[in-house]
Amino acid sequence: MRAVARSRTAKRGAYTPSTELAKDVLSGRPIAIARMISRAEDGRAEAASALAELYLQGGRAHIVGITGVPGAGKSTLVSALIRTYADEGHKVGVIAVDPSSPFSGGAILGDRVRMSDAAAAGSAFVRSMATRGHLGGLARSTLRAVDVLDAAGYSPIIIETVGVGQDEVEVVAAAHTIVVLSAPGLGDDIQAIKAGILETADIHAVSKCDKPEASATVSALQGMLALGGSSAGSDWKPPVLPVSSVSGERIGDLRRAIGEHWAHLRRSGELAVRQRNICRTRILGTAKQLFQNKFQQKPEALEPYVRAVTERRMDPSVAARALLGWEEDPWTT
Amino acid sequence: MRAVARSRTAKRGAYTPSTELAKDVLSGRPIAIARMISRAEDGRAEAASALAELYLQGGRAHIVGITGVPGAGKSTLVSALIRTYADEGHKVGVIAVDPSSPFSGGAILGDRVRMSDAAAAGSAFVRSMATRGHLGGLARSTLRAVDVLDAAGYSPIIIETVGVGQDEVEVVAAAHTIVVLSAPGLGDDIQAIKAGILETADIHAVSKCDKPEASATVSALQGMLALGGSSAGSDWKPPVLPVSSVSGERIGDLRRAIGEHWAHLRRSGELAVRQRNICRTRILGTAKQLFQNKFQQKPEALEPYVRAVTERRMDPSVAARALLGWEEDPWTT
Repeated sequence: MRAVARSRTAKRGAYTPSTELAKDVLSGRPIAIARMISRAEDGRAEAASALAELYLQGGRAHIVGITGVPGAGKSTLVSALIRTYADEGHKVGVIAVDPSSPFSGGAILGDRVRMSDAAAAGSAFVRSMATRGHLGGLARSTLRAVDVLDAAGYSPIIIETVGVGQDEVEVVAAAHTIVVLSAPGLGDDIQAIKAGILETADIHAVSKCDKPEASATVSALQGMLALGGSSAGSDWKPPVLPVSSVSGERIGDLRRAIGEHWAHLRRSGELAVRQRNICRTRILGTAKQLFQNKFQQKPEALEPYVRAVTERRMDPSVAARALLGWEEDPWTT
Repeated sequence: MRAVARSRTAKRGAYTPSTELAKDVLSGRPIAIARMISRAEDGRAEAASALAELYLQGGRAHIVGITGVPGAGKSTLVSALIRTYADEGHKVGVIAVDPSSPFSGGAILGDRVRMSDAAAAGSAFVRSMATRGHLGGLARSTLRAVDVLDAAGYSPIIIETVGVGQDEVEVVAAAHTIVVLSAPGLGDDIQAIKAGILETADIHAVSKCDKPEASATVSALQGMLALGGSSAGSDWKPPVLPVSSVSGERIGDLRRAIGEHWAHLRRSGELAVRQRNICRTRILGTAKQLFQNKFQQKPEALEPYVRAVTERRMDPSVAARALLGWEEDPWTT
């Protein structure tokens, strides 16, 4: 598939300007979507205004974040969900941000093949984001990829990530519905790490529900939720759903819960609040990334400050304020 | 101890200006150190110039980061190291950034008591940073606490953190010597999460070396290091050291390795390179935090941008550039 795409590009020869490509994205052409996401990943300046234009055209998709530690069975669950949505006639998009994802490395070839069936039928678009080499940051690239799929009419758009790391947390926070997948029998150490993520869940899924330990995990999560009370300002009660990704058992329950949460968000007015929070976080995150990029691209602008702070002639906060343009002449302080 | 300090403050009544307090920090008074760290945690603007002054006075301490997942035995190891350093006559400082640390919650009372013995002898200063409620960010507060101890003449200064989360990673990256503690028998899921941290280790410690599984963990780490080759530009070979925090066995080996790494950094010239990298990261991290604080304190300045991005009238990148002051009138784009 990739080889075919490459040879086509080679035959055409000419580079399609991103503004042209954006039109093909809006008309839903998968090859244009794939290329536009690649340009977002490469951080090409030429693509910036086209990506901005696509952002303005989007806003209809239901964005679903699915997170869980490696080994929880995330990718298999996502595969099952793709089939469910595709069977219902939805155009489902998946962005996998996970170094262990089969979509990125081919670890589970069987799933990859079934995935391609849905993709070939035109009802699914699956893309993995490499976790290295993003000039504009992994979180930025991933959110841009979601923008592109959104503008192209995909919904739901599933973001699959391991729940650890700043980029992953930022990406999951940009979802309307957050599904946290727990696996029975994972140790307390893992639970401690996940605690922050567990609190953000709109839906809990417990994988491997055919295992006897699964019911203990379900009870533990229910206990945690009972203790925590309901989220401030929401009457949504996060359900705890046992699933088996392998046998496909009870995947329908999860799919229904995702749909119910989306309906709840729209009906209750929580969607507007959540959208605002997502946008606020994204604006600030983008600004911080742009700031960082500036000095990665021009290290010489940073150099005198690094030297002064290293030699204890200047405080790091003074240097930081100067770089932000908040203080005119830091060398006098 | 805390109660005593409080009643003294109450008797004196007056608030000591931070510039006055800084003088007492420089002369090594523990109560002044504790108060100055609290002011850094509270993000008091009044303390900023005093903290900057203390930064300029520091730069002599050996900063040691000790990281490992909850349950690895980190806090017990740190306790053993404190006693070792105190017995040698060092003024050792500890900043614990770990919600499960006994220094913050009293989970292991025995250690807490032994800790207080060293503290009472004036040779150790132990402080835990709460992981919530830092106006300037946890990483900023922690690095400021290190600055304060450094200016007061403490060395080594040990930063104890769980190795997960952006703040923790940032704090560990600010250490001269990074010790990663692994526990035998922890699952592969944990190992996968830790992979990024393992690569940064200058020294590997394996806890619970009296357990039979420990030697397998030591071999696994040695195998990983053999595969990875040596770090670019360094001829330091990270040792893998079995330790037992409970029996105190082989803590001396770890203490010697920490000293050897410090000697290596100074002798080879790597210290200067590392200091520069630490300062670069700290300047950029501080700038990003200051930027974030500005809009947390003045949400109304952010509001029109949030509304425009939420309503898809403006792209998040355009809003971000405007907030950075890089574009004059975003409303025309």
